Amino acid sequence: MNYNDTIVALATPSGVGAIGVIRVSGNNAISISNNLFKPLNNKSLLDQPTHTIHLGHIYDDDRALDEVLLSIFKDPKSYTGENVVEVSCHGSHYIQSEIIQLFIRNGCRAANPGEFTLRAFLNGKMDLSQAEAVADLIASDSESSHKIALQQMRGGFSNKIKELRDELIDFASLIELELDFSGEDVDFADLEKFESLLNRISDVLKYLIDSFSTGNVIKSGVPISIVGEPNVGKSTLLNLLLDDEKAIVSDIAGTTRDAIEDELIIDGIKFRFIDTAGIRKTDNLVESIGIKKTFKKMEDSRVILYMLDCGKLKNNDVTNLITEIKKIINNYSEKHFIIVFNKIELIKNDGIIDLFKDFDSVCISAKTGHGLNDLKSKLSSLLQLGKLSNNDTVITNARHYDALMRASQSINNVKKGLKSGLTGDLLSIDIRESIHHFGRITGEISTDDLLGNIFSNFCIGK
Amino acid sequence: MNYNDTIVALATPSGVGAIGVIRVSGNNAISISNNLFKPLNNKSLLDQPTHTIHLGHIYDDDRALDEVLLSIFKDPKSYTGENVVEVSCHGSHYIQSEIIQLFIRNGCRAANPGEFTLRAFLNGKMDLSQAEAVADLIASDSESSHKIALQQMRGGFSNKIKELRDELIDFASLIELELDFSGEDVDFADLEKFESLLNRISDVLKYLIDSFSTGNVIKSGVPISIVGEPNVGKSTLLNLLLDDEKAIVSDIAGTTRDAIEDELIIDGIKFRFIDTAGIRKTDNLVESIGIKKTFKKMEDSRVILYMLDCGKLKNNDVTNLITEIKKIINNYSEKHFIIVFNKIELIKNDGIIDLFKDFDSVCISAKTGHGLNDLKSKLSSLLQLGKLSNNDTVITNARHYDALMRASQSINNVKKGLKSGLTGDLLSIDIRESIHHFGRITGEISTDDLLGNIFSNFCIGK
Repeated sequence: MNYNDTIVALATPSGVGAIGVIRVSGNNAISISNNLFKPLNNKSLLDQPTHTIHLGHIYDDDRALDEVLLSIFKDPKSYTGENVVEVSCHGSHYIQSEIIQLFIRNGCRAANPGEFTLRAFLNGKMDLSQAEAVADLIASDSESSHKIALQQMRGGFSNKIKELRDELIDFASLIELELDFSGEDVDFADLEKFESLLNRISDVLKYLIDSFSTGNVIKSGVPISIVGEPNVGKSTLLNLLLDDEKAIVSDIAGTTRDAIEDELIIDGIKFRFIDTAGIRKTDNLVESIGIKKTFKKMEDSRVILYMLDCGKLKNNDVTNLITEIKKIINNYSEKHFIIVFNKIELIKNDGIIDLFKDFDSVCISAKTGHGLNDLKSKLSSLLQLGKLSNNDTVITNARHYDALMRASQSINNVKKGLKSGLTGDLLSIDIRESIHHFGRITGEISTDDLLGNIFSNFCIGK
Repeated sequence: MNYNDTIVALATPSGVGAIGVIRVSGNNAISISNNLFKPLNNKSLLDQPTHTIHLGHIYDDDRALDEVLLSIFKDPKSYTGENVVEVSCHGSHYIQSEIIQLFIRNGCRAANPGEFTLRAFLNGKMDLSQAEAVADLIASDSESSHKIALQQMRGGFSNKIKELRDELIDFASLIELELDFSGEDVDFADLEKFESLLNRISDVLKYLIDSFSTGNVIKSGVPISIVGEPNVGKSTLLNLLLDDEKAIVSDIAGTTRDAIEDELIIDGIKFRFIDTAGIRKTDNLVESIGIKKTFKKMEDSRVILYMLDCGKLKNNDVTNLITEIKKIINNYSEKHFIIVFNKIELIKNDGIIDLFKDFDSVCISAKTGHGLNDLKSKLSSLLQLGKLSNNDTVITNARHYDALMRASQSINNVKKGLKSGLTGDLLSIDIRESIHHFGRITGEISTDDLLGNIFSNFCIGK
C-alpha cells in the first residue's frame, strides 16, 4: 500500500441532500485542486493560508461542473496531517461522481475505506485506539455509546494504557538494570516495590477487562427478554415502549423504523429486545417456559421481564407460582429479574401482589400505558450505564479486550515468576510481552494486517 | 413567516457517513455558535475573519458532544447573505441530532425546506429562477440536465428574461410618453420601431416556449418505446442496454438499481423506457399493434424502436409489412421511428433488408450485443440534446413555461391592439402585463404563496 499519493472520496453519506463534501488528502491535494478550481477572486489556492474557504467553480477543461466552496488545510494542520482540500458541492449524485472522477483523472486515487483516518494514525495525529474510536463515534446511536466513543477518541483510554505501559517500561528497565548487577544480591526492598507495582497494574487490567462486558453492552445494546404466557401482554408492552420512544427517536432524521424495530433507547441507554414468543401454556409454569429455545434466549439477555396477568392471579396458585419464580431466579442468578404485573386494572384482591414483595416488580397496564414510566426508570437505573462520568474508562472493543487479556496473562506470569524466584532475564521476557500487548492497543506495535483489519471496517471517506 | 431569526438544519444527506454538515444562518449564527463551541486555540469566534475554519469541540454545558470543524461566513459574504456557520461533525445520526437540538435550545429555529435558498433570494444573492435552478441542480442526474440547471443557476436564463423585460419597460415608457402628447399625431416611424421590437420579443418568447418540450424531456428523460411482436427480443435488448450502462452508472455511489430500472443515460442524455409488453401476434401487423393501450404508450413516447426478427422475415410478406410500417409512421409523424432488425445472425437473404432502405434502421443482435453501439449513437445523435452549448437557454420549469405563455399572449394582444389602432393607454395595459409575467419568473414580482410553493419542494438544509 502506497501512502505517498493523493486520495479522494465522498465524505458525506451518499444520497440527495443540500450539499455533499468531497475530501482530498495528500501532498498534491492543493496543487491538483488549484488546477481544477477557478476561484471568484482569481487568486491561486497555492497562496492561500490554511483553514480558509474559497468560493468558485470546478471546471473540467472548459465545462463548469459546479459552484463550490473549497476549504484548504495545510500539512500538518489537517485531519490526516497531510495537505487536505474539502470540496463542498451541491448534493447531487451526478455532480459528486463527476467531481470525484475529475480528481481521479487528474492524479488522485480513490481512497480505501478508513484511509483518511489510517493516514492520520500513520502521521501521528492520533493513536490506534483513538482511530478506532472515530468509527465507534460515527456508529454511536445512544448517549452512553457516544460518550464512551468520544472519550476514547479524545485519548482518555489511550492515556490510561500509555500510563500502564510507561510504568511497565520503567519496571522492565529496573529489572534489566539488576541483570547488570546479577553478581550481587537482589535488593528485597525493590522486590516489594515491584510486587506492589504488579498488583496495581493487575487491578487496573482487571478493571478494564471487567468493563468490557459493560462496554460491549453499551455498544450493542442491553439484551432484554420479555417472557410470560401467551396473551399476557408482551407484544402490547413492547409496542407501547417502542411507540413511546419512537416519537423521540424520530427526531433523528433518517432513523428508519426497521432499524429501531426491536431497539429502544431509554435515558441514553440502548436496549435490545430479544423475542421470546413461544412460551406454551401448561399447568406447570416452570415447564411452560422450559422450552430449550426460550431458556437460551433468557441466557443471552441481561434483564428478564417476567410478565404476569393480574386478571389471572389466583390466591390458590400464588404459593406455587412464587416457588417456581424462585427456581427461575436461581437458574439465572446473574440476570436482573423483574416481575411485570400487567393488566393492573383487573386486580381482584389488593393483598395478592404483596405476596411478591421479595421480588423486584412493577405494576403496569400495557393497554393504558399506566406504570410505563416506572418500568422505564427501573430499567435505566438498573444498569447505571447512563451515569458514566466523562472520565470513566470503558473497553468496548474486542481487539482491546483480547490485548488486555494477554497483557494480564503476562503480568500473572511475571508475578508467579517473581514468587518462584525467577531470574531477571526470564522475568523481563514476560514484562516485555505485556508491553507489547499494550503497544498493540495504541498502535506503537502494529502490522499491515492489523491496520488492514481495523480500517476496512470504516466507511469510505473517513 | 419571520426571516429575522436564526435557522439551523442538517445540510448533508441523512445516513451514516464520515462527516455531516449542519448549517446555521441568521444574525445570531456566529454568536450562538460561539457560546456552544470551544476552539482549540481558545479564541472567540466573534473575532475571526469570514471564510475561516476552526477546530474545536461543541459543548452542551460541560458535556462534549463532538470534535468539529466550524466554518464562518460573515454577512453579506455567505450563501444566504446572512451570517452563516457550518458545523462539520462526525457522520452519526445521534451526534447530528444532538447538535441540532442544542442549537435549537440556544435560540435557533429548525429551518423549513429550502429556507436557506429562500433567504438567499430575499437578500438579493440570487433571483428566483436561479434559486429554482439550485433544486434542479441537486436533482440533476445526467450531463444535459446538469448543464441546463448549472447554466440557469449561473444566471444565463435570468439574463435573457431580464433583457426582454428591460426592453419591454423601455417600450412601455415610450408608449406612455406618447400618452403625454396624446393631442399630437402618432409618429409612424416610432410605430414601425415598436412593431419590430414586438416581433423580436415574440421570436425570443417562441424560442423559449418551444425549448420547454426539449427542456422537459431533458429533465425527466426522453420517453422511448420498444414495440414489436412477442419474442422479437424487446426485453433482451432493454436488459442489454441497461446492463451495459449500469456498469457506468454504478460508479455513482448510492444509485440504486430501482431508480435506474427503466432509465438509461446515453452520452449524457437520460432515456426513459416505456414498457409496451402486450402486443399480440395476429396476421395483420397493424391490427396486432393496434391495441389501444400500446397506441397510447407510443403516443407518449418521443422515440419508437420498432423491432423485427430477422429469422422471421419472409420475402412474400415484406411488401405488406412495409405498407403497414408506413401507416404507423404516418400515424406517429412527430416521433422518431427506428426499425431495429434483431437476430441479425439469422438473416437468410442479404437483399431483404435493402427493401427497408427508406426507413431509419439499425441491425443488432440483442443476444451477442452486436450493433448495440450503433443503436446507442443513433439514439443520442437523434435528439442533439447532448450537444447543447453552454450558452443555450432552455426552459425546464413548468412555472416559467406558464409565465412565458402568458407573456406571449399579452404581447400578441399588444400587436393586435397596435394594428387596430388602440390608444397608448390601452396598449400599455397589455405591455405592463407582459412585464409582470417576466417579473414573476425572476422574482421581481412574487407572493408568499408563490415562494412557499417553490421552496417547499426543496430539501431541508438547502
